[in-house]
Amino acid sequence: MARRNPNLARLQSGYLFPEINRRKRELLQRNPQAKIISLGIGNTTEPLGTRISAALSRYAADLGTPAGYSGYGEEQGLEALRHKVAQRYYCGRVSADEVFISDGAKCDIGRLQLMFGPGARFAVQDPAYPVYVDGGVIMGQTGDYNPQCAHFNEVAYWPCRPENGFFPDLATCPAAEIVYWCSPNNPTGAVSTRKQLQELVAYAKHHHAIIVFDAAYAMFIRDSELPRSIFEIEGAKEVAIEVNSLSKPAGFTGVRLGWTVVPQQLCYEGGESVRDDWNRIMTTIFNGASNIAQHGALAALDDEGLMEMKQHVDLYMRNAALIKKTLMALGVTCWGGENAPYIWARFPGKSSWEAFEYLLEKAHIVTTPGSGFGPAGEGFLRFSAFGHPHDVQAACSRLEHLLA
Amino acid sequence: MARRNPNLARLQSGYLFPEINRRKRELLQRNPQAKIISLGIGNTTEPLGTRISAALSRYAADLGTPAGYSGYGEEQGLEALRHKVAQRYYCGRVSADEVFISDGAKCDIGRLQLMFGPGARFAVQDPAYPVYVDGGVIMGQTGDYNPQCAHFNEVAYWPCRPENGFFPDLATCPAAEIVYWCSPNNPTGAVSTRKQLQELVAYAKHHHAIIVFDAAYAMFIRDSELPRSIFEIEGAKEVAIEVNSLSKPAGFTGVRLGWTVVPQQLCYEGGESVRDDWNRIMTTIFNGASNIAQHGALAALDDEGLMEMKQHVDLYMRNAALIKKTLMALGVTCWGGENAPYIWARFPGKSSWEAFEYLLEKAHIVTTPGSGFGPAGEGFLRFSAFGHPHDVQAACSRLEHLLA
Repeated sequence: MARRNPNLARLQSGYLFPEINRRKRELLQRNPQAKIISLGIGNTTEPLGTRISAALSRYAADLGTPAGYSGYGEEQGLEALRHKVAQRYYCGRVSADEVFISDGAKCDIGRLQLMFGPGARFAVQDPAYPVYVDGGVIMGQTGDYNPQCAHFNEVAYWPCRPENGFFPDLATCPAAEIVYWCSPNNPTGAVSTRKQLQELVAYAKHHHAIIVFDAAYAMFIRDSELPRSIFEIEGAKEVAIEVNSLSKPAGFTGVRLGWTVVPQQLCYEGGESVRDDWNRIMTTIFNGASNIAQHGALAALDDEGLMEMKQHVDLYMRNAALIKKTLMALGVTCWGGENAPYIWARFPGKSSWEAFEYLLEKAHIVTTPGSGFGPAGEGFLRFSAFGHPHDVQAACSRLEHLLA
Repeated sequence: MARRNPNLARLQSGYLFPEINRRKRELLQRNPQAKIISLGIGNTTEPLGTRISAALSRYAADLGTPAGYSGYGEEQGLEALRHKVAQRYYCGRVSADEVFISDGAKCDIGRLQLMFGPGARFAVQDPAYPVYVDGGVIMGQTGDYNPQCAHFNEVAYWPCRPENGFFPDLATCPAAEIVYWCSPNNPTGAVSTRKQLQELVAYAKHHHAIIVFDAAYAMFIRDSELPRSIFEIEGAKEVAIEVNSLSKPAGFTGVRLGWTVVPQQLCYEGGESVRDDWNRIMTTIFNGASNIAQHGALAALDDEGLMEMKQHVDLYMRNAALIKKTLMALGVTCWGGENAPYIWARFPGKSSWEAFEYLLEKAHIVTTPGSGFGPAGEGFLRFSAFGHPHDVQAACSRLEHLLA
């Protein structure tokens, strides 16, 4: 009698990264000596800043003492951390009770779909990070998959290509209630300008849509003119949620710490408070981020922690600059890499998987095929700047050798 | 245009613990000198075992070194930890690839509902821990709330009262596809016998239902005859999922570490693998438990860690024995407290909230009103054994003074 949620059958099996791993293993079987370098996934490689790791370590040791022990905390996160995120990260643009600490952006995006429920029509940038669509599939928001166009029938895909400056013509885009928007973008490395985000906010106001703004790479923005948060845009608090994470800037990919900001004034069509629903969801099916990780986050948002994060970001952005310079010198057209840790490169005449196979086979370099992020990613490869600098340098030498 | 998930409107506002906190605050306003002792929530109070906290602390410090750093792990958890849970906790009854490490049982129960989706009909013990029903409400499995009987129309409530030995007559119970079963039980402290679980497994086989077995308190079982896992019952791997947690035995309520076991042979009605769906859900909208917490769990499942957990359990179970002895000596009928850290007490002539108010007002003791766990809990109070021993002793003295 126990039946499967029919939405699960709609998930497309080829989740990108398992397929990449399969091809990697296959190469290693044929060529066990191959020294593969990964510029594939966005996994951090550098040790935590010493101040931050010391704070994590000290708090964990204190949990073994009567004075330092702590059990359940508030599901929404430590009051001190919510305040610090509001004050130090958002410069007071949002208030502490609008900040919900979590175990990461991907997990929050999974939970967010519960607020809109089955049938909600959403838009994604095409290409996009897979969790928006896959989370929506599980929730029953996507309709069936159409293999012909590699689209789900009920999802609004907003193409973001070099030709449109990675920003769609909102006047002609298919309509949506929920808009997932990622800037700096994974995978394209494009960063939305202030003017573009103003347009996006105006769109959301006009259509009473809600923007879910994924700012997980915001700390990688170098250009001070570019907005790092949707809440830098006037009126955004009436139409937007922001998801964020310490995974990439602090190296917390394994430690797990993120947050979501849901403004007080954000309402559904019927006038109900979105923030109150998020509070109810987080207190009902979540039990707080690890208190150890939260104390690491408190340290990361101190002056010294912020400096340590900046050093991390600088290191990865030097990688990005090297990859981009190498590709461009070789005549490969590419984008991103200046305010984002991803480079988006076009290999004319090759499909994404053909280009992937070519670099894997000939240079033992793993990248990510752009088509895995959506049909508009076909023909592109994503190069990730997350890696040890000497590995990235070695990979660039191989590229020079192969493509020169 | 952005609409609210209509299921959220069905959630009943009075989530138990906020209401308890409100009444506590009210007392403190009237009587700022009151020294309130909480035997209310199941929050651990004792510091972590020193071996376990040392392991957490050491791993966190190592994350600050090139050799010790680690980024994303497998979403399903560290291979070594999955093996250790399978071997040390389940004595090889389950295999490592059936164990999925997570940030806790409550979070897993929230995610589990995605496998069954809207419209799945589930049964809960009445009374029950609130997340089963609330999670089902959010997922659209419950129908409307009927305030007259304090039941959701589409949920099968299986009454578990002293009169039926806290085990329902399965032949006459309303049918369900999914059965949430918690043993040792929160809130009643009842532990299902082997024979009862055999009946439950037979029921599930007969009706092709899936049991979600919540074993979060399994380590509190003292009687070696009582089963600690549903997988001790023959045939259970064909019909059951088990959710578990280190929150209570290791004091990881704040650290966050649990797991769910989904056997390979468990299928939906249509023959699809439940385990494969769980794997897909965990890899899609979850990103792994904190690697620090996972290393704490590795230590907790070592010989010394198991000893430290046993010491924790022993301490809380001494509290339980004292509370139960005190109540019984005073003529209060009560159950549980022998193989579970909860005591379930009846105060004849008083509703749950009346009894709660009486103890709060007269003895400044916080308990949990049984009616908050479901209508069959009306007339009962739950006493939690989680507390510092000296606080529990003081509370028992107050009870003696008040009720003698």
